[in-house]
Amino acid sequence: MPGTPPTRFVYLGPEGTFAEQALRTIPAAERANRTPARSVGEALESVRAGDADAALVPLENSIGGAVGVTLDELAEGDPLVITREVILPVEFVLGARPGTSLPAVRSVAAHPQASTQCRNWLRAHLPDAVVVDVLSNGAAAAGAAAGEYDAAICAPIGATRHRLEVLADKIADHPDAVTRFALVSRPGPPPPPTGDDVTSLAVYIAHDRVGALLSVLMELAVRGVNLTRIESRPTGEALGRYVFFLDCTGHVADVRLGEALQGLRRVCADVRFLGSYPRHRWTAAAGERPVPAPAGLSDADYADAAAWLARLRRGDLT
Amino acid sequence: MPGTPPTRFVYLGPEGTFAEQALRTIPAAERANRTPARSVGEALESVRAGDADAALVPLENSIGGAVGVTLDELAEGDPLVITREVILPVEFVLGARPGTSLPAVRSVAAHPQASTQCRNWLRAHLPDAVVVDVLSNGAAAAGAAAGEYDAAICAPIGATRHRLEVLADKIADHPDAVTRFALVSRPGPPPPPTGDDVTSLAVYIAHDRVGALLSVLMELAVRGVNLTRIESRPTGEALGRYVFFLDCTGHVADVRLGEALQGLRRVCADVRFLGSYPRHRWTAAAGERPVPAPAGLSDADYADAAAWLARLRRGDLT
Amino acid sequence: MPGTPPTRFVYLGPEGTFAEQALRTIPAAERANRTPARSVGEALESVRAGDADAALVPLENSIGGAVGVTLDELAEGDPLVITREVILPVEFVLGARPGTSLPAVRSVAAHPQASTQCRNWLRAHLPDAVVVDVLSNGAAAAGAAAGEYDAAICAPIGATRHRLEVLADKIADHPDAVTRFALVSRPGPPPPPTGDDVTSLAVYIAHDRVGALLSVLMELAVRGVNLTRIESRPTGEALGRYVFFLDCTGHVADVRLGEALQGLRRVCADVRFLGSYPRHRWTAAAGERPVPAPAGLSDADYADAAAWLARLRRGDLT
Amino acid sequence: MPGTPPTRFVYLGPEGTFAEQALRTIPAAERANRTPARSVGEALESVRAGDADAALVPLENSIGGAVGVTLDELAEGDPLVITREVILPVEFVLGARPGTSLPAVRSVAAHPQASTQCRNWLRAHLPDAVVVDVLSNGAAAAGAAAGEYDAAICAPIGATRHRLEVLADKIADHPDAVTRFALVSRPGPPPPPTGDDVTSLAVYIAHDRVGALLSVLMELAVRGVNLTRIESRPTGEALGRYVFFLDCTGHVADVRLGEALQGLRRVCADVRFLGSYPRHRWTAAAGERPVPAPAGLSDADYADAAAWLARLRRGDLT
Repeated sequence: MPGTPPTRFVYLGPEGTFAEQALRTIPAAERANRTPARSVGEALESVRAGDADAALVPLENSIGGAVGVTLDELAEGDPLVITREVILPVEFVLGARPGTSLPAVRSVAAHPQASTQCRNWLRAHLPDAVVVDVLSNGAAAAGAAAGEYDAAICAPIGATRHRLEVLADKIADHPDAVTRFALVSRPGPPPPPTGDDVTSLAVYIAHDRVGALLSVLMELAVRGVNLTRIESRPTGEALGRYVFFLDCTGHVADVRLGEALQGLRRVCADVRFLGSYPRHRWTAAAGERPVPAPAGLSDADYADAAAWLARLRRGDLT
Repeated sequence: MPGTPPTRFVYLGPEGTFAEQALRTIPAAERANRTPARSVGEALESVRAGDADAALVPLENSIGGAVGVTLDELAEGDPLVITREVILPVEFVLGARPGTSLPAVRSVAAHPQASTQCRNWLRAHLPDAVVVDVLSNGAAAAGAAAGEYDAAICAPIGATRHRLEVLADKIADHPDAVTRFALVSRPGPPPPPTGDDVTSLAVYIAHDRVGALLSVLMELAVRGVNLTRIESRPTGEALGRYVFFLDCTGHVADVRLGEALQGLRRVCADVRFLGSYPRHRWTAAAGERPVPAPAGLSDADYADAAAWLARLRRGDLT
Repeated sequence: MPGTPPTRFVYLGPEGTFAEQALRTIPAAERANRTPARSVGEALESVRAGDADAALVPLENSIGGAVGVTLDELAEGDPLVITREVILPVEFVLGARPGTSLPAVRSVAAHPQASTQCRNWLRAHLPDAVVVDVLSNGAAAAGAAAGEYDAAICAPIGATRHRLEVLADKIADHPDAVTRFALVSRPGPPPPPTGDDVTSLAVYIAHDRVGALLSVLMELAVRGVNLTRIESRPTGEALGRYVFFLDCTGHVADVRLGEALQGLRRVCADVRFLGSYPRHRWTAAAGERPVPAPAGLSDADYADAAAWLARLRRGDLT
Repeated sequence: MPGTPPTRFVYLGPEGTFAEQALRTIPAAERANRTPARSVGEALESVRAGDADAALVPLENSIGGAVGVTLDELAEGDPLVITREVILPVEFVLGARPGTSLPAVRSVAAHPQASTQCRNWLRAHLPDAVVVDVLSNGAAAAGAAAGEYDAAICAPIGATRHRLEVLADKIADHPDAVTRFALVSRPGPPPPPTGDDVTSLAVYIAHDRVGALLSVLMELAVRGVNLTRIESRPTGEALGRYVFFLDCTGHVADVRLGEALQGLRRVCADVRFLGSYPRHRWTAAAGERPVPAPAGLSDADYADAAAWLARLRRGDLT
């Protein structure tokens, strides 16, 4: 029922990964039922089927980029909406069974996003080790504990849980790496605007790409809507056919974002609304603050222009 | 009182010129009081002062261009609005006192717009005659009748009224020349939309002219608002400072024009609304028909997008 | 012969007007033959015919706007180019035969541009006088001297020459009014770039005016070419068909203006080049200084990009 | 040595994957030394180090999207250029040790791109099987052959080589799926233009993303350069900082692409040229043909405009 807080949560498992850690930063989830899913698709499907109220899945990582499978799942099938974002610092360690020395490591289990983020460290310290992609950071730790691999790249909590010894910590190439997760529900009224919101969209444009993408950006620029993220994913039809995932500043309830959304609806082949939700302020870094509206595009400017138009329409030109 | 049809009309005189002829094409004016004014400024001032309800003044000519004084008067002083346009074919004759032969003509009286429109004819047939600018076509005929000039360029009705002999008719270089007049009133609710309307604006932009004029055109283009006329007039402050007079397709009551107007209000230094009124269809020529809305910008597209946004806002993503 | 300084000058007469005064600010003209012409058309025709080497004609006035007849003459017929601009402060006096008192003035002779510029003064001081348009400021003074009119709006030199008494001086509404004149010759290599030049163009665009005019401005904006003036004139075919007269900053020999010109040539129905010539610095006012190139659009940026492209083309990616 | 055909090739291994198959479509490689690399990074590093002349690595897949690691490797480190693209249809089978029945399959080894492309088939036919990510299609087949997994998604050649029984063939959701590979070398003069070429770029833009990305697209649009691909990858600095990978139609030696490249160089924070090379025509499908230049943007239009500018510059206005 719309408005009712979710009580049954699902997340990208297994237990002990970053997704669980991210979910537990949400107060309602801390007190609720939390079930790991084997894949993003399974997590979202259980929401669609009504078996869960909300799913926490990864959207993107500041190093590894977009999580394609999440974007693909959101763009297809019955509509789902993001109601919250969680941004979590990512910290990796290299764990191994006690007694293993670094020079002895020949194979390293890692989730592909994890190995991507530790690429430089691996090159410098384990240039000859084979990196084996596994399904999750948790699986990597479990595999190393089971002796399948000599070592694992995993979260600190994963090393602890699987009694691995930490051969090296903070091995990520970028110490400020973060992962952004989305809490996804069945459609319902969006959370109320907070003044610093994000709206996510999946946009399909016509074939002539320069012109069409230019039109999309003009619809946003003319309303002073800022784009904080743009990702392209293939539609699967052919090379060169994309769906664009956009994150815009603002809320669907805002006048100017509403006007921009209507513009996109008109000029695009299709637009799928993926939710309006509060921006997660995980850092006070300058670049992450909301960008002030350009001249002429503040809410006050919009209100002034609307009042002026209303006066014109009734013949009041004073 | 808004809504009351005007009963006291003023027009750019003197009697017997194109402005009077244009005014008499308006049924309400045919039955009402009609007073000539000595200048455009005087005509508009009498409307501002409440001495007249409406003034008929020339806006532009398809050969001579904009009537600068009308534009300047509309842009300054208390607001006035155009409630109707009248487009009148322009036909010129060369009139002279009976007995004058064409080779004997050494001086020709003409309103500057008239001599501009007959330039080629004058070069070909009276290359050595002095053309004397006079205040109006009526004054030209009167001057020729009084013997001040050998001949006059005037309207056929002017030659008749002043008993001039027509030495040559249809002497305009462009046989299709027309003049466009505006019926101007004090502000009030605009006439209702007809589906083929014009909205006139005076737009002041910031100094950096490429960027600012580009912004103005983008606000219109993004909403599919067509521009049928753009004129620049100096603001008088300095060379290179202009006010732009725009005629757009659409009515202030239309959704998309309303959105574009709000956009202009936000990005321009100032916008003065000069009225929404029905387009005068004086010809069925192809180029003059209303331009159909581009893909995605029809009223139906706007309505669809608005309905979609309303659904999104209440959480209905079906 | 290209490169030979002109020795035979013609200017918009009669003698004693602002055009003659402007011409005499050009050193070469001061020592050369100077002939008044009866009209702008006549002046330009004598250059086209080879009877004169250069013509000085008015282009625009900071109050009255463009001089339509000059623009029309430049856009039609055999090509001519502007090789120099002259900007002259405009100062008007009201002159009358000695013994005339201001309250006794019932008729005022004035060139239409002059009466436009003194509109407020006339309204305040001679609200009931009839203003009679005459061909020139010189003709106004002559007419007042001959008793045809009670007074004349003219240049101070005109009052002196015709022995008129100055009833009021500095009567222009805007004390900073200026008129801009062009020195026009048959085509030849343009004067060399000075670093602060103007390029004048007449641009014909396709019918769909929002889109087409937007394209023109984009071609300029993308190259950082500033537009200091834009005027529209009817082409004469029908209402709503215009030729645009543009003044751009820069010289045809400049890389970035050359690139922009090629762009206009490609996207416009037609472009007529009207000359590159040094900007006349008639004032040190801040607003009139050349606008510095935006980021990425300076000559140095252009040179850097050209050098980079040359390296890429030969495979040098260092 | 630039111009010398490469004789030592490296490709993304192991043997028997699509990359080897793609490499062998290149005649020069068929006769040359071909070495598998364990990763894209290793392959490119061996070219940078001079141990190989060219590397064949995957760029993107029509279903799975961009191969992030390849893009990241091309954007960082010493410059490399793409000299050729190869597009290969992708066909997947489900292979298992002889005697395995489909219902008995509980675990499936697959490269993540492979499982993404067979998602629907897996959901429909093996909804309960665990999909295990492995490093390559070849590794999947080897793992199934070794009994580590019940089955493998692999190329037909992989099943043959590892003596697997094909339980199902053509299991990809999109039967037209293709993978696009790049042949990458150290910088040198690009292959000569063919009239149907691709130019690849990595573009870094300033922070304000709407405006900056809009500028990039305008630089291309104004020159009629079409964009066949746009991918964003995080720069690693923070969420919301991207490098864009663009594929444009045209060759660095073309006038209009050269002009657009210079424009990008000027407006972007940085542009890395990744090569100009012939488009691989793997299909005659309508959508894949080169898009003809828009009006005013053909090579002939460019040549005409350049000739016109040259005439203007020497004063020839005929």
